[in-house]
Amino acid sequence: MAAARIYLDAGGSAPLSARTRDALSAGFADGWADPGRLHAESRRARALLEGAADAIAEAIGVRMEDVHFTASPHEAFNRVIAGIFSARRGRERIVVSAIERDALVHAAAHASSDRLSTVPVSAAGHIGLDDLAEAMRVPDVALLAVQHANQEIGTVQDLAAVSALAQRAAVPLIVDATASIGHVDPPAHWDALVAHPGDWGGPAGLGVVALRPQLRWLPAWPEGDPWAPGNVSVPLALAAAVALQERLENLHTVSRHMSDLVRRLREQLALVAGIDVVGDPDMRLPHVLTFSCLYADGEALVAELDRRGFAVGSGSACATGTLEPSRVLAAIGALTHGNVRIALPPAATHAEVERFLAAVVDVVGDLRTRSGAPRLG
Amino acid sequence: MAAARIYLDAGGSAPLSARTRDALSAGFADGWADPGRLHAESRRARALLEGAADAIAEAIGVRMEDVHFTASPHEAFNRVIAGIFSARRGRERIVVSAIERDALVHAAAHASSDRLSTVPVSAAGHIGLDDLAEAMRVPDVALLAVQHANQEIGTVQDLAAVSALAQRAAVPLIVDATASIGHVDPPAHWDALVAHPGDWGGPAGLGVVALRPQLRWLPAWPEGDPWAPGNVSVPLALAAAVALQERLENLHTVSRHMSDLVRRLREQLALVAGIDVVGDPDMRLPHVLTFSCLYADGEALVAELDRRGFAVGSGSACATGTLEPSRVLAAIGALTHGNVRIALPPAATHAEVERFLAAVVDVVGDLRTRSGAPRLG
Repeated sequence: MAAARIYLDAGGSAPLSARTRDALSAGFADGWADPGRLHAESRRARALLEGAADAIAEAIGVRMEDVHFTASPHEAFNRVIAGIFSARRGRERIVVSAIERDALVHAAAHASSDRLSTVPVSAAGHIGLDDLAEAMRVPDVALLAVQHANQEIGTVQDLAAVSALAQRAAVPLIVDATASIGHVDPPAHWDALVAHPGDWGGPAGLGVVALRPQLRWLPAWPEGDPWAPGNVSVPLALAAAVALQERLENLHTVSRHMSDLVRRLREQLALVAGIDVVGDPDMRLPHVLTFSCLYADGEALVAELDRRGFAVGSGSACATGTLEPSRVLAAIGALTHGNVRIALPPAATHAEVERFLAAVVDVVGDLRTRSGAPRLG
Repeated sequence: MAAARIYLDAGGSAPLSARTRDALSAGFADGWADPGRLHAESRRARALLEGAADAIAEAIGVRMEDVHFTASPHEAFNRVIAGIFSARRGRERIVVSAIERDALVHAAAHASSDRLSTVPVSAAGHIGLDDLAEAMRVPDVALLAVQHANQEIGTVQDLAAVSALAQRAAVPLIVDATASIGHVDPPAHWDALVAHPGDWGGPAGLGVVALRPQLRWLPAWPEGDPWAPGNVSVPLALAAAVALQERLENLHTVSRHMSDLVRRLREQLALVAGIDVVGDPDMRLPHVLTFSCLYADGEALVAELDRRGFAVGSGSACATGTLEPSRVLAAIGALTHGNVRIALPPAATHAEVERFLAAVVDVVGDLRTRSGAPRLG
């Protein structure tokens, strides 16, 4: 690929750092064995896996034995939700915010046989606390699921307030931290937490669940290991831990840098006629940004930016490839078409952002001219 | 690890070859992106994933679109069995042989709410065809699951005969080929097939399903991708394909070499008093061997061999770590305790086998003396 290529779609997957790739090599050299057997090779694989769990546990603020690897964040949602739901027998309803990930909503709908209560969010993407309190008032709530931060619009929830409402109702709170861990300090208020190594610079093919020791959870699937039947890949787990370590070492420096770049993007994009920049301007992930363009098709925008060397996302991040209108943007009342989603990698530069801004203005203008859209601004 | 270490537990996981590790490096360099997005990085990951599926499909003898990756063989069993079972609505029973893997039996029990018919096997480990015909005669059979070869005793089933009975009853046949693909020619008689890259020298963390185009299968889980919600790791899939390619290039040479080594092991071990060598001596996997030792504890045997530099397996291969008595050995009427399971890696040598034989005689003698067992032979 040409050196000039600029990758701005680092939500959920990003090029691996040199340290992470070294960890993978070490993992495949020393951690190829099945960690569940008795001999030295297996014990070494098991030690690497436990070391990875321990490092991630420390980063999240829990004990090693409360961290579990799954094959993906999707599997993490399925297993944590089904398991808590089982343990809450007699309570049948799951409360979610209107901007949870598709994978979480599917898992919740499956576990509860579609008995979901969906709590609306504000224009900035914050869950309505009065509406949430109302939804929690019914007696049959099995669990509440609210994300830490949104992967499209970047808004960070007030989990202290959310958690207070959950505690008052004695309902366990599952927090989807798949877009936030490695980018901001981990959330403090949750009973179960889901994280995604691919989002913090680790390899794809892994999910992470953390449970508070006092949380009741029952295995809902038949196999031996209730989290990852047949084991997860030890090298992937090791690399995930190393990637998180690397992110945390520079968390606040990178976060300030990302915030600067995103602020610049938000300010400049907001000046373009017909471009709508969404999400809370302050309580937000430092590196994520979505904007919508009037009279421009999202798929065409992504394709044309791609042709010019910029990789960006569009549509709902979880309905990848399908380009269905984003549920998140619909929920906050924004334009659901013509949207572009940015997730900056830590290495993103000011120069890249300026080049991107120039390209967006150009491409949006071109697409509007081609489609005969009215002149704006 | 000391250079003298000899790894003889290559069933399900083995050190990766240089070519496989190169493929992993290339995969992590070029295939880190989410294969479901629109930009060039994703298209490249998608192309690598499709290339991997294509290579595995060709090896199995099907089309690329009929091959699916899962997060593990366990997930493959769960999803293929649940999906076929759903499509056979009204038929409630699953027929399995007595020596199927735990993961398959769990998946079948879960899908059918424990309506399993278990068909006994002979002392050599072959499914009883008369008993199978009898089990297939009831009208409510949803599916039949029979392994291609057994991962503990090595016996290869007569799938042509099994398949004829399934076809006569118009019941789909699922073949567990997780112990055979990469070691012998792939089976020809099946409607759905499950394979395990970790067993043919690929990395852990992946399963493979192949379906005949005419087979009816319904997704039984809620998420977008019914096989691997949240995607499998593209580098792992690429490495799996490369490892299989490498195995197939040398299949018959390696197979003859393995057969020679296993024949030598079987002959020499059978001469030791109180050692019972199990499995069909001819219709078998070339590289797999299990033997049982009277008056010797399996865990102690594995631990002592490990201490002397030999990694071997024991107990049920699928109940790793638990050392429960092997269901497989019980089903063929062999000693279920004091057993050692060998799966030779392709690089195993005659010299290693001779060293191992000497060590076994020594260790078994020691353990028997220590435990005050009667003198044998």
